[in-house]
Amino acid sequence: MRAVDVIRRKRDGGELSPAEIDAFVRAAATGRGWKEYQLSALLMAVFLRGMSAAETAHLTRAMADSGKVLDLSDIPGPKVDKHSTGGVGDKTSLILGPLAAACGVVVPMMSGRGLGHTGGTLDKLESIPGFRVGLGEDEFRSALRNVGLGMIGQTHEVAPADKTLYHLRDVTGTVESVPLITASILSKKLAEGISGLVMDVKCGRGAFMKTEADARGLAESLVRVGRANGLNVSALLTAMDAPLGRYVGNSLEVIESIETLKGNGPPDLTELSVLLAARMVRLAGRAADDAEADRKVRAALASGAGLEVLRRCVEEQGGDPRVLDDYSRLPTAPRAMAVVAPRGGYVAEMTAGAVGVAAMVLGGGRERAEDGVDHAVGVVCRRKPGEPVRAGEMVYEVYYRSTARLLDALPLLEESFTVADAPPPEQPLVLGEIA
Amino acid sequence: MRAVDVIRRKRDGGELSPAEIDAFVRAAATGRGWKEYQLSALLMAVFLRGMSAAETAHLTRAMADSGKVLDLSDIPGPKVDKHSTGGVGDKTSLILGPLAAACGVVVPMMSGRGLGHTGGTLDKLESIPGFRVGLGEDEFRSALRNVGLGMIGQTHEVAPADKTLYHLRDVTGTVESVPLITASILSKKLAEGISGLVMDVKCGRGAFMKTEADARGLAESLVRVGRANGLNVSALLTAMDAPLGRYVGNSLEVIESIETLKGNGPPDLTELSVLLAARMVRLAGRAADDAEADRKVRAALASGAGLEVLRRCVEEQGGDPRVLDDYSRLPTAPRAMAVVAPRGGYVAEMTAGAVGVAAMVLGGGRERAEDGVDHAVGVVCRRKPGEPVRAGEMVYEVYYRSTARLLDALPLLEESFTVADAPPPEQPLVLGEIA
Repeated sequence: MRAVDVIRRKRDGGELSPAEIDAFVRAAATGRGWKEYQLSALLMAVFLRGMSAAETAHLTRAMADSGKVLDLSDIPGPKVDKHSTGGVGDKTSLILGPLAAACGVVVPMMSGRGLGHTGGTLDKLESIPGFRVGLGEDEFRSALRNVGLGMIGQTHEVAPADKTLYHLRDVTGTVESVPLITASILSKKLAEGISGLVMDVKCGRGAFMKTEADARGLAESLVRVGRANGLNVSALLTAMDAPLGRYVGNSLEVIESIETLKGNGPPDLTELSVLLAARMVRLAGRAADDAEADRKVRAALASGAGLEVLRRCVEEQGGDPRVLDDYSRLPTAPRAMAVVAPRGGYVAEMTAGAVGVAAMVLGGGRERAEDGVDHAVGVVCRRKPGEPVRAGEMVYEVYYRSTARLLDALPLLEESFTVADAPPPEQPLVLGEIA
Repeated sequence: MRAVDVIRRKRDGGELSPAEIDAFVRAAATGRGWKEYQLSALLMAVFLRGMSAAETAHLTRAMADSGKVLDLSDIPGPKVDKHSTGGVGDKTSLILGPLAAACGVVVPMMSGRGLGHTGGTLDKLESIPGFRVGLGEDEFRSALRNVGLGMIGQTHEVAPADKTLYHLRDVTGTVESVPLITASILSKKLAEGISGLVMDVKCGRGAFMKTEADARGLAESLVRVGRANGLNVSALLTAMDAPLGRYVGNSLEVIESIETLKGNGPPDLTELSVLLAARMVRLAGRAADDAEADRKVRAALASGAGLEVLRRCVEEQGGDPRVLDDYSRLPTAPRAMAVVAPRGGYVAEMTAGAVGVAAMVLGGGRERAEDGVDHAVGVVCRRKPGEPVRAGEMVYEVYYRSTARLLDALPLLEESFTVADAPPPEQPLVLGEIA
């Protein structure tokens, strides 16, 4: 089979055979057989011609099987994970993982690093002194047995074909393709050895998918392709116009997560975390329906059981559990300054994307995969859309280290919100569900 | 300017700016700035999204300017060339070049090597003992001054961007794109320093363009884009279902070309050569209209003036001019065998592509660019479509060297023609003209 013939078939709108998809994925995983310029030509052809559900399902499975796939069948309990397409201030993993585990779900969470304006779970966890996201497989299994929750990074052994294709897509303008996104996400989740997955598909100005139609299309693809591969996927479409919660930045988000598990979280973050955790509990068969799952999760939140799971998770993974009670043990930025409202009224729009870029510019995120991150810096939203503000009152509190970076971030923040005479219409947090 | 942004614009159906096209072409020519996987992603996006006339015109000019562009303004006389999109048995260059030069046209013909089932002018010329297609620029200029005709290979200095892109297109399924073909052809022709170009766009089973609609689309693009770059292009659509003339193979085609210049050529080859030469004469301003140009070319054929130009061209380029009178001085295959008609009737279809592949398989053409060719081998069509044949009578005479190669070629030839009870309807040679 020649690469050029496979490319031509897709170019002409044809359907690729399983063997053709296998050849492509094998080449991406091993670097042999196809040249990178042939991989990218096929990626562009897929971008413009699409893929059928059957093609996407096979691509996903082949990408998962290009690397190590965990077998967790010896660990008792249903394994369910959650994945988000990426938002600003989105720290739900740190909250729902403990809540779901407290309800009897085993949560083997493998995450990537944050890139661009959206933060990554690993970076947040690494704010906690000593916390190791690089557990070996035996350690990870122990964590799942002992705590019901493990939160680690994807090793190089997971879906190596995805690593090659993800990089190529980034530099060849072939990122925003539903079949390619679907295969990228689900191949890594299939490698976790889970039976259920709750997808949080973000939609809005701060999200990858800007329109509800696009987000719905991706969610439907994820559900369909997951099920074709034996993975029970349930997807929520959720709003990502303003940041989720109030804290954006690694150690800041750890603090807000802990506060949420203590019952003091902001409503949007609390509600979304509970909702996603409840879906995990239902997918895991730990509740008969959504209502029962919701009750169980709220009980785990109210009783502090979720917080206790997080404490044990931090201990299990080498972190300092005292941070749960003493936030001064987390990295703290040396300086702070305020961004204030230029006039009085109500905060109207707040662009999550701009806040996310500002946090990245401050050093809290990566522009390129090889960059490091500053766990201490970030932005706290003292006002959110719909809240009243007086002229000169603080909208953002900015925690920074470098004045030069601050000067890059400030204009972004100043442009990121508007103040109006009346509060904006209330926006629902959940836009839809595909289950 | 980032490559990924240029790719994304074309991917989304946008129009590239001249600066964006320049960046792409510069990268292709120098290997710097863009990765090959980015070049191929853009090629696929262009393939599927197309290019406007303005984009194609700029791409063509940029590709020409990526290398050496001849300035022949110091050589007196109008410079006009002909280019064919490639056929089987298509040796018109060897006939029309001398005829046009005999009518006062300066013909600075730079050709590529043959590839696949279509032969190349350079390979045919190199059948002539001593003939040098690798003249230096001074020698080429002398030939144009002294003979009015030079036939050489494209040097590495000509359109280096095209060399990179041509190779990439071949292995990424992005060959059959009208804007990319247009730019590839015309960039190399612009480099010849000509003012007029006659395009022979082949159409049919043995041609690159299978349908008249596709051939017409390419012809219109060539005319439009040529003129946008100051090159007066006139295009003929001509049939390429059966081979042109009767001889297919390098030295065999040289013999048929010489015979044609002696007035003994087959009607289809003679008529097409005269027609194309007449268009060159008109484009060169050596005739007021097509009718006058036709009379002049026929006079040059009848008087032997064309044959004399070929003789001087061979001498000028180091070849043995005695081949014009003694074909035994050309390479001769050691063996011959016949392919005969399985039944009596009239030859109906004859697939030029299959005959071309058979000649390649015998050693007369290249499967890959780095292969050598055997100048002696080939196929003579003793019958052509419409001609009567009796059962057991010869249809093809096959000149071969290796029996193993013969055994590969024979099934192709046996499958390449049909015999019917009645002659097929006569097919016109010229299907249309865009002038």
